[in-house]
Amino acid sequence: MKKFLVISGHPDLKNSLANKTILDEISAQCPQAEIRKLDELYPDYNFDVKAEQAALEKADVILFQYPMHWYSMPGLLKLYVDKVMEHGWAYGSQGNALKGKIFLASITTGAPESAYTATGVMGHTVEEFSFGVANYAALCKMDCKKIFYIGGMMCVPGVTTDEQKNQLVDKAKKQAAEILECLKSL
Amino acid sequence: MKKFLVISGHPDLKNSLANKTILDEISAQCPQAEIRKLDELYPDYNFDVKAEQAALEKADVILFQYPMHWYSMPGLLKLYVDKVMEHGWAYGSQGNALKGKIFLASITTGAPESAYTATGVMGHTVEEFSFGVANYAALCKMDCKKIFYIGGMMCVPGVTTDEQKNQLVDKAKKQAAEILECLKSL
Repeated sequence: MKKFLVISGHPDLKNSLANKTILDEISAQCPQAEIRKLDELYPDYNFDVKAEQAALEKADVILFQYPMHWYSMPGLLKLYVDKVMEHGWAYGSQGNALKGKIFLASITTGAPESAYTATGVMGHTVEEFSFGVANYAALCKMDCKKIFYIGGMMCVPGVTTDEQKNQLVDKAKKQAAEILECLKSL
Repeated sequence: MKKFLVISGHPDLKNSLANKTILDEISAQCPQAEIRKLDELYPDYNFDVKAEQAALEKADVILFQYPMHWYSMPGLLKLYVDKVMEHGWAYGSQGNALKGKIFLASITTGAPESAYTATGVMGHTVEEFSFGVANYAALCKMDCKKIFYIGGMMCVPGVTTDEQKNQLVDKAKKQAAEILECLKSL
């Protein structure tokens, strides 16, 4: 199987249900995957650019796992991209470190899927809000195979019932299974 | 004139031409504007959320000034949004602190305007990459009046000639003039 690297962009995984479940599932089903949790690695945003670049260089398939915050990736993950994807390394005429690698993204939203439509409250699809993510992969000469998405993943302590929580966990596990299915097919 | 607050999201203004020129012009022509330079205020991303919220509360018109990095706002500014725009303050049923304020954005890109079209190398317009910015304003119950944009603002030391640099400065000053014209009309 291809070397699989997961970059987790959730800013607070300890208080996450969806992202934590997806990562735990990937870890359980695909123990050879490298999972880099940016919130644990860089609580002060002091990125080790060389270590991150080395991890990316080793991988065949790179997955960005994150919740959509304010219609885009969390600041933590955006800062990682700004810092790690250096000109002359990730992009530009001499920047070929990621060339030919496969890129995947897996996005969760708190609002339901129905909100992310032309007629829904958000007015646009998650794909439309993520034009930049696909372009980002392309600029790094990666092949953006798929953007996975599940909505309605809001879990509020004291409000969300156990039954609802179980449903969210099932949904997150399904997303993880789809990611791993895709990985096997590559 | 309305109280004008500018949030500068450029991560390194000392090495900026376009963003620095726009901010300097605004400062010169509209000295009563408050300009908050996030890169100077928060080099360690240690945002003073209360101070930022207080600045926002005082303003009638809020401008986000930033270069487009990786098809969206720089991580510095995204992190500011994630941290400062708290639920129950900026959004949600009880979050009305920004309600009714006017929101503007002013975006610069290094690549030329022609790149940001359906048939250009970026494949989408800056407006399309910025769907989330307009939505962000709407979720905070602000009125997103306009997103200003200029492209081709790349300035490479030792490559960009003085004449080209002067042209970029003129273009940036024109953008500042348009922003101030808009401000007067509000």
